[in-house]
Amino acid sequence: MKIGVFDSGVGGFTVVRELLRLIPQVPIVYFGDTARAPYGTKSRRTLVEFAMEDARFLMEHGAGMIVIACHSAASTATDELKRCLDIPIFDVVSPSIEQACNLTKNKRIGLMGTRATVSSGIYAEKIPKKLPGARLFQQPCPLLVPLVEEGWLKGRETRMIVKKYLRPLKNQQIDTLILGCTHYPLLKDVIREKAGKRIKIVDPSLEVARQVAEEINRKKALQGSDQLVQEIPHRFFVSDLTPHTEDIVASFLGMRVRLERI
Amino acid sequence: MKIGVFDSGVGGFTVVRELLRLIPQVPIVYFGDTARAPYGTKSRRTLVEFAMEDARFLMEHGAGMIVIACHSAASTATDELKRCLDIPIFDVVSPSIEQACNLTKNKRIGLMGTRATVSSGIYAEKIPKKLPGARLFQQPCPLLVPLVEEGWLKGRETRMIVKKYLRPLKNQQIDTLILGCTHYPLLKDVIREKAGKRIKIVDPSLEVARQVAEEINRKKALQGSDQLVQEIPHRFFVSDLTPHTEDIVASFLGMRVRLERI
Repeated sequence: MKIGVFDSGVGGFTVVRELLRLIPQVPIVYFGDTARAPYGTKSRRTLVEFAMEDARFLMEHGAGMIVIACHSAASTATDELKRCLDIPIFDVVSPSIEQACNLTKNKRIGLMGTRATVSSGIYAEKIPKKLPGARLFQQPCPLLVPLVEEGWLKGRETRMIVKKYLRPLKNQQIDTLILGCTHYPLLKDVIREKAGKRIKIVDPSLEVARQVAEEINRKKALQGSDQLVQEIPHRFFVSDLTPHTEDIVASFLGMRVRLERI
Repeated sequence: MKIGVFDSGVGGFTVVRELLRLIPQVPIVYFGDTARAPYGTKSRRTLVEFAMEDARFLMEHGAGMIVIACHSAASTATDELKRCLDIPIFDVVSPSIEQACNLTKNKRIGLMGTRATVSSGIYAEKIPKKLPGARLFQQPCPLLVPLVEEGWLKGRETRMIVKKYLRPLKNQQIDTLILGCTHYPLLKDVIREKAGKRIKIVDPSLEVARQVAEEINRKKALQGSDQLVQEIPHRFFVSDLTPHTEDIVASFLGMRVRLERI
């Protein structure tokens, strides 16, 4: 059983990092659609097309389950993928909604995300269903992805921009904040500082990795543990490759890996 | 004769704006590859593939000449397009090099651009050929495109980031600055303020439009002017379309136009 993970680019490596930590023995096949990245500015129709192609690519490379590590794709294309594909589909959105609803005390939840994620409306639809009376306050943050990719993780400009994006959410007295993009965990320190101690932060990369690890461990218990331990190495595919891509992946993963351009 | 203009996204509308001003009677067919935008972070190989597809699409829609309005594509794919396609190819890079070499007194020229444009090395190669002894100082500015697309054209964060990017160029005592990306003309006021009066600014959208207009006017003189005035309307295609795309185009063009998703 291979875990297939896809993202618009390299942000999904924050999910890979957590999977390697939790279930290092399970082979991963990754696809980052760097030639068409980012997804966060694109329309619903285009995102569904891209997500379907990405998932099929991973299945052709042996994935027996799919993790949609891109929030923009998860927000718009999860249902479509579940309907069309005959393997388990995990996504970064559902477990972070679960966790946010568990953590909040005042039922006021904030979301930072790309424009596509915010306009999908998926969080606003699902959170009140999960936790009646809960309210969601959303902030599109299109500059955070380029700031992370530029490597400006702690600079003065970054702190100002994070503060500016957080202000309307803090004004709404949120007590829980979902980092609705796989790039944002790299800004967790600045976000935590500007959000203040009162606000609990939900990191979806961590949440989805936990969910996948539970599923894998449950299967292992059923099948006997050795069957899942194989010699197949992890494979990391991208649709475009620059030297800068390799540097960003190293910063996301904390180590250098071989990237294969398709 | 239709003028075909392509760009990675909507930045090329700064070229369209100048063409409409200079030669309003000539029909334009535009293609913005918004589904795969931006190009500025992508590899040479991928850019050449994309540029070839974009140019062919425009030719299928009747373009008799092509303007590569994307600096990243112009920097990496112009030679390839000229070799493979049998129609005149214009690009934003060549006329801005020409103009910068005309304007500089101290032979110290600065370039702001995307990562792809800077690493193409095309300016560094061509400028000393055009003007012996001239030196080029380059600064990749990956945050400026998202700042423009966010509509933060004059905010405090934008001014700080522009200042930060300009500092190394000013330290090199440049007297001429090329805005090496079609998005940057929208930041011209802030860039002019932070660059100071001593530095002359080259706007490639303007330069390439002038070059195209000269060519069209020359052909008109040869063929008799009426032949070029046709009833065909302009057409603006994009590979992805969101409501935000339409807003950005309106801000680039100063008016709303109908965008067609391919």
